[in-house]
Amino acid sequence: MSSRQPAPRTQVRRLPDKQLHDVAERDRALDTALVAHIAVVSDGQPFVLPVGFARDGERLIVHGSNASRLFRSLAGGAPTCLTVTLVDGLVLARSQFESSMHYRSVMVFGSCTELHGEQKSAALATLTERLMPGRGIDARPPSPKELAATCVLAIPLQEWSMKVSAAPPDDDPADLDRPVWAGVVPMEHRFAEPVDAPDLRAPYPVPQYVRSWPAGRH
Amino acid sequence: MSSRQPAPRTQVRRLPDKQLHDVAERDRALDTALVAHIAVVSDGQPFVLPVGFARDGERLIVHGSNASRLFRSLAGGAPTCLTVTLVDGLVLARSQFESSMHYRSVMVFGSCTELHGEQKSAALATLTERLMPGRGIDARPPSPKELAATCVLAIPLQEWSMKVSAAPPDDDPADLDRPVWAGVVPMEHRFAEPVDAPDLRAPYPVPQYVRSWPAGRH
Repeated sequence: MSSRQPAPRTQVRRLPDKQLHDVAERDRALDTALVAHIAVVSDGQPFVLPVGFARDGERLIVHGSNASRLFRSLAGGAPTCLTVTLVDGLVLARSQFESSMHYRSVMVFGSCTELHGEQKSAALATLTERLMPGRGIDARPPSPKELAATCVLAIPLQEWSMKVSAAPPDDDPADLDRPVWAGVVPMEHRFAEPVDAPDLRAPYPVPQYVRSWPAGRH
Repeated sequence: MSSRQPAPRTQVRRLPDKQLHDVAERDRALDTALVAHIAVVSDGQPFVLPVGFARDGERLIVHGSNASRLFRSLAGGAPTCLTVTLVDGLVLARSQFESSMHYRSVMVFGSCTELHGEQKSAALATLTERLMPGRGIDARPPSPKELAATCVLAIPLQEWSMKVSAAPPDDDPADLDRPVWAGVVPMEHRFAEPVDAPDLRAPYPVPQYVRSWPAGRH
């Protein structure tokens, strides 16, 4: 049984039939997404920041600039919410009301812990490996100065909820006789042909690890 | 001159070279994205909700359930932030520090206004037309009961900022001699072959408007 009892603020109130508690499906979504949106509140004003992120077991790693006021606020332990959303397609029902999207969305609540020292370096290596598998060896690791400029945060996967919409259109019976097509238009996401940096010093080939990145990440 | 003087909270402090004030580029990004992330703060706890949205001239339209506590809070005019992010590719620099993503991100600040009556119906029609161009005629418009269950909000494109990362890797000169490939791995997004609803009453063909949806939306 891989489910987790949701805490009150992770209880999905709307469309509860779409709520999932499956950790494997949660991790599949988190490991597919490249970007999360994280909230910071400053003087009552919320900000929603897009951040590259990586799952590291039962926590998520994000990083930003140590000069960012909002990132410093997150590092201070302010309550936050981090949401990861994957759009998988459009659902064309016979009614506009039932028309919707296929999506997977994971919402994580809690507060961030700032990482330092060995933990910080290890978390940055994990970020590189998750976002650009294989690149860790080719790309120079951060220097002390670069490390000092970077803020690395972890948020535990403790309080979370997930919603998945993956079903065909769910039309009212009265609408089924409408003489129109209905169905799902799935979306495809893939990496395209890599583009050389203009300042390549020699005709280095695109690495095999890049060629082997799977389709579907977005 | 299509730029707008940013207000203090829309002043990009980090990486200001990536800030754009071009309204046409802003609208291109907003009209490409299917989903936005909007913040609601409840008792000091922020929530980041994914929402389908549409640009309607100089405002954005979002909709949700009138039974949603968080949506009611937005309808009440709580200060919010709505962020739209498009991931366009991965930037593989020679250093991990300079490795990053190509992205376009629009952040909108303000508060929502709830729409009613004719304005509400018109906004819902705009949402359908923007998210599923051509579908408005085929799909049944909302009934009075469906309209009553739906909360439709508008947020003006008044206070906004945009960041765009679209350049090649920007490596330190000292790293350029590293004998590895560097460059950009672009991402492609497209609609795949539509899937018939299992309860189609007749072999209605996939509509031409669906076939003509452009690649790139995500």
